[in-house]
Amino acid sequence: MKSCNFSLRPIGVIRTPFNGVDDQVPIQGRLSPETQGEIHIYPEFIDGLKDIEGFSHIILFYIFHKTAVMKLRARPYMDSVIRGIFSIRSPHRPNRIGMTIVQLLTVDDGVLKISGVDMVDGTPLVDIKPYNPRFDGIDQNEPIRTGWMEKPVEKDGNRRITINSRKQWLHEQDT
Amino acid sequence: MKSCNFSLRPIGVIRTPFNGVDDQVPIQGRLSPETQGEIHIYPEFIDGLKDIEGFSHIILFYIFHKTAVMKLRARPYMDSVIRGIFSIRSPHRPNRIGMTIVQLLTVDDGVLKISGVDMVDGTPLVDIKPYNPRFDGIDQNEPIRTGWMEKPVEKDGNRRITINSRKQWLHEQDT
Repeated sequence: MKSCNFSLRPIGVIRTPFNGVDDQVPIQGRLSPETQGEIHIYPEFIDGLKDIEGFSHIILFYIFHKTAVMKLRARPYMDSVIRGIFSIRSPHRPNRIGMTIVQLLTVDDGVLKISGVDMVDGTPLVDIKPYNPRFDGIDQNEPIRTGWMEKPVEKDGNRRITINSRKQWLHEQDT
Repeated sequence: MKSCNFSLRPIGVIRTPFNGVDDQVPIQGRLSPETQGEIHIYPEFIDGLKDIEGFSHIILFYIFHKTAVMKLRARPYMDSVIRGIFSIRSPHRPNRIGMTIVQLLTVDDGVLKISGVDMVDGTPLVDIKPYNPRFDGIDQNEPIRTGWMEKPVEKDGNRRITINSRKQWLHEQDT
């Protein structure tokens, strides 16, 4: 096992309507685009927000700070089969980095109102990058395969996890 | 300043044709989709690769390990104006996390051949997530604004940074 070479320090905190991992947190922010939250940037980093208001979408990098376990294989929420951790979006990763593209609504002195959140309230934010479809999107003409995720999923874009099933999913011990 | 709360440990290393930051590294992998590289996953994490071969694109999270400075404002490569660090893609960030979407070509026992690399050879990899346009793309019908990046850029999708200009850009001290 390699040593811990790099450290992250929070640049702010993400405030959302979801008080805990057992709450009805959307499985992905893009599937719940109307769910609003706020980013509170710590004073010493506010200067880095210059020009961000020009972007409609930003990419948030944060810590899955409620996760205590690391798994190399786990059952994704959308499936019943055990998958490799790098093929799923589970928080139980070797490095607990989460990423979500959110819509940026307003910027006011270190407070960013955002939409499309899927984090627990109080999640530590470690980076913001501006979203640019030329860098971060795949051209429509380029074929995309999404492996096991290609199986049909319910069509309700706002599907949320029920409290019990999410709790069960988060706490189940597999492999 | 908050303390360093979270640490990252590399899960592997990214091999690319670019030996140093002064080399002709593409400014973004998606703008140089034919540039190939390899990911070498450390043995203790290979088990987490199960099912990844089903995905045509994966999202790499890595450390800008050659960066020694942190800036809150900097000049982006594509512009002449000093911008906030969270509005640009510069490596000189409070937390040195880089993200690139690459095409996955082959998977063979811990070695992933990939295309569309924009990292320096030897870059420490900390996470892989499967790319899913439903989670990671913006719907074509949703308006996107990209702020200062909207100014016209040369149309050669494979544009690379010349050695001298990149060196100058990387080493310039601003604000």
